[in-house]
Amino acid sequence: MLQYNYVDVALVHHPVVNKRGETIGSAITNLDLHDIARACRTYGVNNYWVITPFAEQQKFAETIVSHWVQGYGSKANPDRGSALTLIKVCSDLERVIDSMREKWGEDPLILTTCAKPQTNFMDYGEAKQRIKNGGKVLLVFGTAWGLAPEVLDRADAVLPPIYGTGDYNHLSVRSAVAIILDRLLGSFTG
Amino acid sequence: MLQYNYVDVALVHHPVVNKRGETIGSAITNLDLHDIARACRTYGVNNYWVITPFAEQQKFAETIVSHWVQGYGSKANPDRGSALTLIKVCSDLERVIDSMREKWGEDPLILTTCAKPQTNFMDYGEAKQRIKNGGKVLLVFGTAWGLAPEVLDRADAVLPPIYGTGDYNHLSVRSAVAIILDRLLGSFTG
Repeated sequence: MLQYNYVDVALVHHPVVNKRGETIGSAITNLDLHDIARACRTYGVNNYWVITPFAEQQKFAETIVSHWVQGYGSKANPDRGSALTLIKVCSDLERVIDSMREKWGEDPLILTTCAKPQTNFMDYGEAKQRIKNGGKVLLVFGTAWGLAPEVLDRADAVLPPIYGTGDYNHLSVRSAVAIILDRLLGSFTG
Repeated sequence: MLQYNYVDVALVHHPVVNKRGETIGSAITNLDLHDIARACRTYGVNNYWVITPFAEQQKFAETIVSHWVQGYGSKANPDRGSALTLIKVCSDLERVIDSMREKWGEDPLILTTCAKPQTNFMDYGEAKQRIKNGGKVLLVFGTAWGLAPEVLDRADAVLPPIYGTGDYNHLSVRSAVAIILDRLLGSFTG
């Protein structure tokens, strides 16, 4: 059973931007935990980091995870527990990078997504090849209206926005993560 | 701007099965409306049919759609309205098929997904080619524990379950729709 064990996913709740481009912290949602954990489990992602500096929000996420991993949910729906066990709650992105560096002895390649034009794009084909070749990769996604500029600056490269058949690119972050994991880690070759 | 205007998506809330394989009707969720409508809009899907025979549930869905398409939401977030405008609430699948037949003068190719082994699989590459060649296609997805047997029997073919890098295939229906639309209508070729 093939597993890609060098890819981590991070979902950032702070710092992200609101509609007006101001830096904010967003609230964790139950569905972001479930949907993204299930997609991560499907595609062999190693850890799904849920990033928020707010203690109450961290506790909220941990309560949900604990229900499905150890509590009643683990008996009612063990498949769900096996997905949510990938979740690690963390206060900021630097700690995630530190943890990956410590584990693998090297810095991960940090890839983000952004709906706006960026100069340092890496296309999906190249990112897929890097992963196939054993590259350690951290995929960083934003909530609200997207990642704050300092997070985009921290990335090594930005994956192109997902366009379908037109110029509309307003997918939910849940859908974007699913599609990107399928492109980078799936076996479909069109 | 390329548009695939011959593909419709249906999300069935009845008849579907529960954990024990019994036929039930499931509740519509707000996120299924939003996430799937946004994915449909991204990939040029023509209509997103939300299927439930329950009048209260139909009204619930229509209230949400109306908020984003005509109400305050349409001003606060017009991109959302342009996605939710694809939603059509309908009591059962046969009416959807009738409507497509009436519009196009032919029966659509009905494709479902199913996590369990089926005999009449059509792979993603072939389905993609059919769409490229102008085939009229209805993609049918189930909520709860999946489509009831009579819906699976009604389909012309079943798309294979989505596996990532292992044997876990418990994606949310929102993630499954996003991935399948990207495979069938997206331009990524791996």
